[in-house]
Amino acid sequence: MLPAYFEAARDRIAGQLQVFLSKKAAELDAVNPLGRDAAERLREFCLRGKMIRGCLVHLGWRLGGGAASASDAVTAVGAAMELFQSGLLVHDDIMDRDAVRRGQPSVYQRYVEASSRDGHDDPQRVGEALGICAGDVAYFMAFELLAQAAAPGDARADVIQLCARELSAVGIAQMQDVSWGASRSFVEAERVARMYLHKTGRYSFSLPLLAGARLAGGDESLRRRLEDCGESLGLLFQIRDDELGLFADTQDIGKPAGSDLREGKKTVLLSVLAEVAGGDDRRRLGAILGNPALSPEDLRFVRELASGGAVRDRMKALTDPLVRQAERAMDEVVSGTDEDRAALRWLLDFSTSRRQ
Amino acid sequence: MLPAYFEAARDRIAGQLQVFLSKKAAELDAVNPLGRDAAERLREFCLRGKMIRGCLVHLGWRLGGGAASASDAVTAVGAAMELFQSGLLVHDDIMDRDAVRRGQPSVYQRYVEASSRDGHDDPQRVGEALGICAGDVAYFMAFELLAQAAAPGDARADVIQLCARELSAVGIAQMQDVSWGASRSFVEAERVARMYLHKTGRYSFSLPLLAGARLAGGDESLRRRLEDCGESLGLLFQIRDDELGLFADTQDIGKPAGSDLREGKKTVLLSVLAEVAGGDDRRRLGAILGNPALSPEDLRFVRELASGGAVRDRMKALTDPLVRQAERAMDEVVSGTDEDRAALRWLLDFSTSRRQ
Repeated sequence: MLPAYFEAARDRIAGQLQVFLSKKAAELDAVNPLGRDAAERLREFCLRGKMIRGCLVHLGWRLGGGAASASDAVTAVGAAMELFQSGLLVHDDIMDRDAVRRGQPSVYQRYVEASSRDGHDDPQRVGEALGICAGDVAYFMAFELLAQAAAPGDARADVIQLCARELSAVGIAQMQDVSWGASRSFVEAERVARMYLHKTGRYSFSLPLLAGARLAGGDESLRRRLEDCGESLGLLFQIRDDELGLFADTQDIGKPAGSDLREGKKTVLLSVLAEVAGGDDRRRLGAILGNPALSPEDLRFVRELASGGAVRDRMKALTDPLVRQAERAMDEVVSGTDEDRAALRWLLDFSTSRRQ
Repeated sequence: MLPAYFEAARDRIAGQLQVFLSKKAAELDAVNPLGRDAAERLREFCLRGKMIRGCLVHLGWRLGGGAASASDAVTAVGAAMELFQSGLLVHDDIMDRDAVRRGQPSVYQRYVEASSRDGHDDPQRVGEALGICAGDVAYFMAFELLAQAAAPGDARADVIQLCARELSAVGIAQMQDVSWGASRSFVEAERVARMYLHKTGRYSFSLPLLAGARLAGGDESLRRRLEDCGESLGLLFQIRDDELGLFADTQDIGKPAGSDLREGKKTVLLSVLAEVAGGDDRRRLGAILGNPALSPEDLRFVRELASGGAVRDRMKALTDPLVRQAERAMDEVVSGTDEDRAALRWLLDFSTSRRQ
């Protein structure tokens, strides 16, 4: 689903993950057999991802003036992005008790199943504990990859610092997401969007673009533009994610439709629904929210609500300025080739219109 | 309780943690108010630790030939060790459902209590989720500190790599600990000791000593000796930890006596008890293990069992070779001043005889 532009970068990242995680599997096998097993699970899980974040490192590198044949360091940083993302997803799925991810049982869920087969008393708890460890190990391996990356000392340390700082913000935004998810009140759309900025936007788009540009030695003004660009794209991406989560089929998004509703997630879309809905609809929406037994009728009701003109208008009013911001920032990026800039523009399409 | 030798290093690390975490509190407050709150909780939690790992960075630096007035980088790496340790403990306490740590409610437990005050439906789950995030953030902040450390490029990247690699092994050893804890069978003492090597030994002693020596540019043979030394000391430290966990008062060790038994932990001491105990005692031990309702009689029974001559002899047979190994490795360390080497020797006393 990624355009041809990113194919070579994606293949290199996948290759690097294969090599690195096979090496880690052997190394961690010396600790105990769960080590090889964990590295192999993480390898399989990483390779099932779209790898958009890893590819954005390549794009940032190109726009920062890096050579068409990216250095190994660029690939290593891209691979590290994928390991960070996997670690975050492993932990997210524990927090949300999401049993399915990327079209298969989630990492922690597989540990729950293994623990159940081993006849443990409380497989859920054992699976969650093993999942916490696996997520931690994914982060540590990502930092190991970064520290090994064959980049000049300062660029390497700067990239590590960029990642570490942004990931702290992701953790804090995730805390907000968890807290809101536990409460029954609706949250204003603008506040949810602010949470998205740190949970997804900057981390998924600004960070890899900036990391790539830093490796290439791209100047401060370019980096600021890529950062701005990434923020708008990331917000649009997450807002589209909410829509897909409500409307798309399980097979397209790799997780059950309506899981945000089941988990009581405070999405921008939900805020808008609550804002626009009249008294009865709003009450019914409130009753559906956070109820694990979401019925097909409930899902249909919310889908219809979300398809109404007023909701579409309000969503458009929220996303249009973001699209304009992204376009403005993109217009100011004049480095790289036409092809590189076309790839940046493709991201806007991807963020607003992707189907899976 | 640390000897005077380490006092200045400890004060510098505490000062660095104060400054860094106050800066992070302000920075993460811009994400949302939970950010300032999390940084402040972590600061308070870090400052309550003994900071032995951070101080060992200083010792490794001195033995590696570093100046008596340690560089800021040494202090920064020491502070990072404390943040790693705090992150690991936050996650450990979730996995073990330990409500008390360092003499106060554990970090996740405080989140459980806050969630309960906020009237959430499932405060335990919310508190665990927030604790997972807080532990993650502690790791990320530790890597940020390392990446900022004012050390030459290669030394900095090497230290980051050392930490990342060792922490992956800690995560895998922790998985083993979790899996064994969920099973009712006893495990042989030697296998448990192997798990300790990676969960505590290398990470708590070898890693900080090596990191300090690397910063000072200490040579390969010194580093190998410090690594060996750290492995034996770390194993002895963890074995002593098990004894304290059974015999010491809550106020001395900052957590309830007998919690290893309650949680079904497979400690070296337990393996030896199971090995030495006769049929009835072994069955009673098996019934006590993993039972959350540990009675004072149960605790007394296990304490008596552990005080028997055969158990003491077997423990001595396990620890004596470790003491000799540590002594041999220490004898081979000839760098540093008399004072530095005395501090290394003090670690052996500390590891085998500490009371809290």
